[in-house]
Amino acid sequence: MQKIRLIIQYDGTNYHGWQIQPDRLTIQGTIETLLYKITSEKISLAAAGRTDAGVHALAQVATFFTTSRLSPEIFLKALNSLLPGDIKIAHADNVTYDFHPRYSARKKRYFYHISNETFINPFLNRYVWNAKYPLNASHISTAKSYLIGRHDFRSFSSTHTDVKTTIRKIFELNIENLNSLSFMGVIIKGKFIKISIEADGFLRHMVRNIVGTLIEVGRGRIEPQNIKSILLMKDRNLAGPTAPAKGLFLEEVIY
Amino acid sequence: MQKIRLIIQYDGTNYHGWQIQPDRLTIQGTIETLLYKITSEKISLAAAGRTDAGVHALAQVATFFTTSRLSPEIFLKALNSLLPGDIKIAHADNVTYDFHPRYSARKKRYFYHISNETFINPFLNRYVWNAKYPLNASHISTAKSYLIGRHDFRSFSSTHTDVKTTIRKIFELNIENLNSLSFMGVIIKGKFIKISIEADGFLRHMVRNIVGTLIEVGRGRIEPQNIKSILLMKDRNLAGPTAPAKGLFLEEVIY
Repeated sequence: MQKIRLIIQYDGTNYHGWQIQPDRLTIQGTIETLLYKITSEKISLAAAGRTDAGVHALAQVATFFTTSRLSPEIFLKALNSLLPGDIKIAHADNVTYDFHPRYSARKKRYFYHISNETFINPFLNRYVWNAKYPLNASHISTAKSYLIGRHDFRSFSSTHTDVKTTIRKIFELNIENLNSLSFMGVIIKGKFIKISIEADGFLRHMVRNIVGTLIEVGRGRIEPQNIKSILLMKDRNLAGPTAPAKGLFLEEVIY
Repeated sequence: MQKIRLIIQYDGTNYHGWQIQPDRLTIQGTIETLLYKITSEKISLAAAGRTDAGVHALAQVATFFTTSRLSPEIFLKALNSLLPGDIKIAHADNVTYDFHPRYSARKKRYFYHISNETFINPFLNRYVWNAKYPLNASHISTAKSYLIGRHDFRSFSSTHTDVKTTIRKIFELNIENLNSLSFMGVIIKGKFIKISIEADGFLRHMVRNIVGTLIEVGRGRIEPQNIKSILLMKDRNLAGPTAPAKGLFLEEVIY
């Protein structure tokens, strides 16, 4: 019996998220079906994070046990030749039995892209949220400072959550104002905002709720200072709306 | 009566090309339907080039006549608010009646991206052709030199063509070997080849046939020197296969 780790990249646009669901196209379901074809074993994947429908990944981490003696490299080649163009395995290796993609992770890093223009370039449309309102960058910057550190993020989590604790630690929350984004060597000019968040873990919709709230601050609907009380009140209704899935990328899982 | 010019960007993946066709989703058909909604006039678009199914455009040029008094800026805003995310109008202005997007054009510029890896990154999959074979860059470079200049490109044109002449002039044919491509600020490492072609006009499938032939040269199936005789023989069967549409972008039309 060997344990194999996969680093997976996917464009989540056409999928109902990572987690397997009956009669729905999911990343996990797609890969497990192919693992069955390759090994004739019913294989279950454990992943670092269950990305939602439409969310992308540059480096999702998943593991599985198999009695097959095929090497990780052969699994990588076999999977990549069978996978659709919007899912690919970037790396495969063996890990010890005690490695778990989720419980062994020390940190995770996501980023989110916003276009602050009247319309989105068609080549960025699947990867960027178009927030059309004028945004006050210094207000956003003040607001973000209250979110960094260890807090109870219940106000930024989906209401129906079954986790033991809603306390998480945000190590980094960077906001970059960009004048262009590159696509295939072509410079696409425009006002863009990239929000990067590194934390020891994330609650359901936490990044998207933080992004949605920061945009509310930027457009003047929430005072930057109110972020403090929003955290303390532990009430999801006080924070901003959930930003769309398409702007979100799982960038890295750090062990 | 005014004549309006549109500069149009589109991801061609989900369309049966530019040209309107009954019961098929096309770029022209999509825009003409919306122009009818806006003006209640049956408007026909003339375009610089009829891109094939799956081909993308950074700056397609199209014009139309209308009795509407709406300004070009209003047409731009109205169209962009109604268009799907994979088509957008980058610019709109008035032109004189004698301006024609195709006949007034002096030059057109296309580029084509190839990934020379075992698999394509999922975020580049819609925009890159995966040629997996080892390629000899110096052979490709020798071959391209025979194509630059004024030639009869019948060997590089689709067989059923109704144009008056198959003579075209290629001003530039650049081949760049890249070690990475950028996507949303993320560097995607790998071996990539970018082929850019500027000519006074293009025959049907001409860029894709040139790319397909250069790749045949690169993998050793056609001798670089044979490009000369392939041009002279005016026989489509002698050149290489048509490269897939998805790697091709209409970059610019020069007036």
